[in-house]
Amino acid sequence: MEDVDHLAHERSKAQFDVEEMKIVWAGSRHAFEVTDRMSRLVASDPIFRKDNRTLLPRKELFKNTLRKAAHAWKRIIELRLTEEEASKLRFFADEPNFTELHWGMFVPFIKGQGTDEQQKKWLPLAYKMQIIGCYAQTELGHGSNVQGLETTATFDPLTDEFVIHSPTLASSKWWPGGLGKVSTHAVVFARLIITDDRDYGVHGFIVQLRSLDDHLPLPGITVGDIGNKFGSGAYNTMDNGLLRFDNVRIPRDQMLMRISQVTREGKYVQSNVPRQLVYGTMVYVRQTIVADASCALARAVCIATRYSAVRRQFGSQNGGVETQVIDYKTQQNRLFPLLASAYAFRFVGEWLKWLYTDVTQRLQAKDFSTLPEAHACTAGLKSLTTTVTADSIEECRKLCGGHGYLSCSGLPELFAVYIPACTYEGDNVVLLLQVARFLMKTVSQLPSGMKPVGTTAYLGRVEDLMQCHSTVKKAEDWLNPSVVLEVFEARATRLSVACAQNLSKFAKQEEGFLELAADLVEAAVAHCQLIVVSKFIEKLQEDIPGKGVKEQLQTLCYVYALNLLHKHLGDFVATGCITPKQASLANDQLRSLYSQVRPNAVALVDSFNYTDHYLSSILGRYDGNVYPKLYEEAWKDPLNESVVPDGYHEYIRPLLKQQLRNARL
Amino acid sequence: MEDVDHLAHERSKAQFDVEEMKIVWAGSRHAFEVTDRMSRLVASDPIFRKDNRTLLPRKELFKNTLRKAAHAWKRIIELRLTEEEASKLRFFADEPNFTELHWGMFVPFIKGQGTDEQQKKWLPLAYKMQIIGCYAQTELGHGSNVQGLETTATFDPLTDEFVIHSPTLASSKWWPGGLGKVSTHAVVFARLIITDDRDYGVHGFIVQLRSLDDHLPLPGITVGDIGNKFGSGAYNTMDNGLLRFDNVRIPRDQMLMRISQVTREGKYVQSNVPRQLVYGTMVYVRQTIVADASCALARAVCIATRYSAVRRQFGSQNGGVETQVIDYKTQQNRLFPLLASAYAFRFVGEWLKWLYTDVTQRLQAKDFSTLPEAHACTAGLKSLTTTVTADSIEECRKLCGGHGYLSCSGLPELFAVYIPACTYEGDNVVLLLQVARFLMKTVSQLPSGMKPVGTTAYLGRVEDLMQCHSTVKKAEDWLNPSVVLEVFEARATRLSVACAQNLSKFAKQEEGFLELAADLVEAAVAHCQLIVVSKFIEKLQEDIPGKGVKEQLQTLCYVYALNLLHKHLGDFVATGCITPKQASLANDQLRSLYSQVRPNAVALVDSFNYTDHYLSSILGRYDGNVYPKLYEEAWKDPLNESVVPDGYHEYIRPLLKQQLRNARL
Repeated sequence: MEDVDHLAHERSKAQFDVEEMKIVWAGSRHAFEVTDRMSRLVASDPIFRKDNRTLLPRKELFKNTLRKAAHAWKRIIELRLTEEEASKLRFFADEPNFTELHWGMFVPFIKGQGTDEQQKKWLPLAYKMQIIGCYAQTELGHGSNVQGLETTATFDPLTDEFVIHSPTLASSKWWPGGLGKVSTHAVVFARLIITDDRDYGVHGFIVQLRSLDDHLPLPGITVGDIGNKFGSGAYNTMDNGLLRFDNVRIPRDQMLMRISQVTREGKYVQSNVPRQLVYGTMVYVRQTIVADASCALARAVCIATRYSAVRRQFGSQNGGVETQVIDYKTQQNRLFPLLASAYAFRFVGEWLKWLYTDVTQRLQAKDFSTLPEAHACTAGLKSLTTTVTADSIEECRKLCGGHGYLSCSGLPELFAVYIPACTYEGDNVVLLLQVARFLMKTVSQLPSGMKPVGTTAYLGRVEDLMQCHSTVKKAEDWLNPSVVLEVFEARATRLSVACAQNLSKFAKQEEGFLELAADLVEAAVAHCQLIVVSKFIEKLQEDIPGKGVKEQLQTLCYVYALNLLHKHLGDFVATGCITPKQASLANDQLRSLYSQVRPNAVALVDSFNYTDHYLSSILGRYDGNVYPKLYEEAWKDPLNESVVPDGYHEYIRPLLKQQLRNARL
Repeated sequence: MEDVDHLAHERSKAQFDVEEMKIVWAGSRHAFEVTDRMSRLVASDPIFRKDNRTLLPRKELFKNTLRKAAHAWKRIIELRLTEEEASKLRFFADEPNFTELHWGMFVPFIKGQGTDEQQKKWLPLAYKMQIIGCYAQTELGHGSNVQGLETTATFDPLTDEFVIHSPTLASSKWWPGGLGKVSTHAVVFARLIITDDRDYGVHGFIVQLRSLDDHLPLPGITVGDIGNKFGSGAYNTMDNGLLRFDNVRIPRDQMLMRISQVTREGKYVQSNVPRQLVYGTMVYVRQTIVADASCALARAVCIATRYSAVRRQFGSQNGGVETQVIDYKTQQNRLFPLLASAYAFRFVGEWLKWLYTDVTQRLQAKDFSTLPEAHACTAGLKSLTTTVTADSIEECRKLCGGHGYLSCSGLPELFAVYIPACTYEGDNVVLLLQVARFLMKTVSQLPSGMKPVGTTAYLGRVEDLMQCHSTVKKAEDWLNPSVVLEVFEARATRLSVACAQNLSKFAKQEEGFLELAADLVEAAVAHCQLIVVSKFIEKLQEDIPGKGVKEQLQTLCYVYALNLLHKHLGDFVATGCITPKQASLANDQLRSLYSQVRPNAVALVDSFNYTDHYLSSILGRYDGNVYPKLYEEAWKDPLNESVVPDGYHEYIRPLLKQQLRNARL
């Protein structure tokens, strides 16, 4: 019974080679092999079980996370895993914990901003986890505006030390992951003040927080967890922390000095290392966020797609079986664009990896010419993909109807654990405003003959794009990459140019930026969507092996683009890129594309190659055996430990027996 | 210190009489007085505290809910509260529990579908809570499609009983609130089968589930809780339940027989009571859902607005204070339309109350003419308001930045506890399709001279509305109710007519409905938004006392309408209702409306008259004293009970000391 595949019929309908699609999704045969092996390793290890996570009270939950983190590290050492394998293992262990910040922020920052000497001293300790580090930037009163941080680091020339201090309550460090209960060290961001009382702005310092002997906070340091967060389980496995300094002294050589130094004499000196290096790190971090977005979105889509094939509702005739909900156009219209987005984000994420390599090479050659464009592009894509992913996880939950609301659907926890991505590493709206600023600058420089580069190159054809009209005459005309690309380019151009024109009406440009912020955000979104569409189209120009694989991806690419066109119809029609008639033809085409996706839907989510362990969703089970497992799961709830609930005698019985009046509640 | 009002300056800027606006919001001076008194009563009673709710494990959480429910009932009796007062008290106790279903579903269904005799027998028991009832309709495999339910009630003429049975696992009752652990009785929906084996469809039966002596399930009954749900705290205070029947016998007179009966001889008889009465109950229940939507939305908006006035970020010059985030246009553009929606939903909810009274009176007079329209209208408004409210709560959370992710912001729990409203009492998409069907029917009857009634009356002017062009020439022209109303009517008409035309191209209409479902949903949304806009405009034609009160509401009405116009720009422009130029003027006008809302924003949310207890949000505190209270709250987390966390010795220390290899984890 256990081995029946309730979705076998769905799988048999697929018109493409699923194994080849798995390779495309993973990025390469090698990446597939590593990912596959690590996901199975985690899934088969009982210590990594997650099934009771949403039921544990915070302390037990957290202790169990510490256990998993230690176990993961143990396995990494025992099996001598490569860095790539280790990071996949942590990914599939699928539980936020201190090691993320240690490896993802503490180590990279020392590498990026520490001198050679500093790296020599600290990195070996960090690599062996003899110290555990976190990244303490945001404060209770200060988030997006890094330049507004209040913590101070004052140089004391008498002792050759910095004095780290929290001058106000609002300056308490707040949110850093791993800080609350685990980290022994932190990279702390503070305003550098030198003896002449001059403020040199925000710099990073390595500060030891806890004793390596007994884990107690060092003198002058107050540290703790900031409390419960969204959801059950979810991000509550992480000890996001608060931190206050009462004149804590650290040696001068614990300021990260690769870019600027303070000398023994208290002189502030800039090194000859370009400051732009900082942006390289940002491009790296944001590229990983885009990759994670595609994984999280794929996970939600996988659950919703499989369950939509299992679930039946309405449409039965004479007591026969009902219709699978995935056959309803309303379901397809909501679900398939998300499936297409998962693939779209995957490919744009892959391209960002290339961009990071490119930027790094250029930086090493001191070529900074593409950096602003690369920075705007990654900022925009981080914002776009995380916003869409967060909203789509919730949409997938709704697509699962009532049962999506049960913890065991996996979707509530996935949502709760994912959404911080919209805020960390740059609030999504703030990032879009940065993109808009870059676009406005690019547009303003066009008349002077400046040639826009990379993802903004299309703006070089501004005159054409301001005037072009789509040539679409029938629905199938939309199945043409250059037709699609042109309308997206035209829309992005026209929104940017309109913003630039409106901005020019303001006496002070800054005032215009504030007043027109909402329009600027829309222009930035249009630009970012164009990037995703164009990278999907570029991907399809590659040689993609496997029966039917490329055809499926083509279909998904058009679903992605035409759905966006429908969603942002106002932009396209109001700017004259397309006529209402063409919009309606696009819609007709979209519907017939859905029919093409339908028989392949389950196979397209199988191609993500997710284990049931990783999905942790009864609705998304590979075998589709949903109802018996839901029923089984229900009985595990602590409320079902007794037939008559705790509290019956105190509260229910007196109520039923009309004896409440005298009861002491 | 505690008494400083950090928002006093904001409050002093208000340009209207807040006390009068409170009356408008409450609906009447009487409603305000009752609401105010009950909310304070709950807020001042320590048993109703909610501050540790998100930290409790399920069993403790549930037990505490039982305690609150019993206490609420005790207070209701002691204080001899009226029904209105009692329901407000339960509302402000703000915790889902079994009494909701008892009062909201069990009692109304017996009232609506029980015979006089049945009412005489069961209602007194229910009114005194000597029995506790729930509403058992949905099954594990069956939700929206009530006609697909599988549970059977077979008449046994030998014993004059019905045999209630669950023939399959998928037929297990699943989701009913209050069923899992508390209810002694249920209204159970099952397929009626009479001796001749004929299936008479789904009917309601009163079934006792648990012994009134010891609360144990009666023979043949398996009952339990369905397990953990979205979020911490949230809906986990409710014992949503599962229920299986193994040939459970009940007396014949426990079938609810007001509309149809089974006689002693096993004959199925229809009574002369009109079946349409059922729709009356539906209109009632959905009207309360719309009212609740406005309250939940207002709660989220209140939190986000106050915190946006407290929070500062960027824009400081020379180290001065930063800009309040509520001053940013991006924040206003996201927040103020939600504020406007809260008021809009409030007024349309008020109007629905009137509609229910009207429908009830007509039903009593056997006038069924307005019933289909009233049914479509309430279905559509239920769908629209709950969808918008759910999305807006999450948007408000995002508007609070990182701190919105903390449980103590109140927003995560509000979201988790609210979202079931999108699914229960009719899935929101299924409901919109019902509305669309009604619209298509109305449009198809127009040529025959049939005059559409109520909220569809505008379709009677189809010829004008298909051709009209908006006359707007400058931004201020949009500040005209008839101009706004006309474009919303024209858009709704054109979308409906376009759907009808496309449907007519299909040989089989049902096929067309399936194929064009996504377009039909959009037409239904346009119709529902028109209703909300038009009822807001109607409200403004009333006499509204109080300095500046009407002016504020006018501003909010235009914000609501013009924001929708921008969001659905494609509809308006593609159907030729407005030109791109007019759309751009609407946008300019919207920006200047935001500037008018800005100084009044805090006062407009104060007008909801919510206590800090009800809001249960540190970010939304009336006094704006956010940071010190966040800091205080953090230390209450169980993780902070010890400086060195549980698990340090087992998992962190061995890791730091490189002794993992030999550790047993």
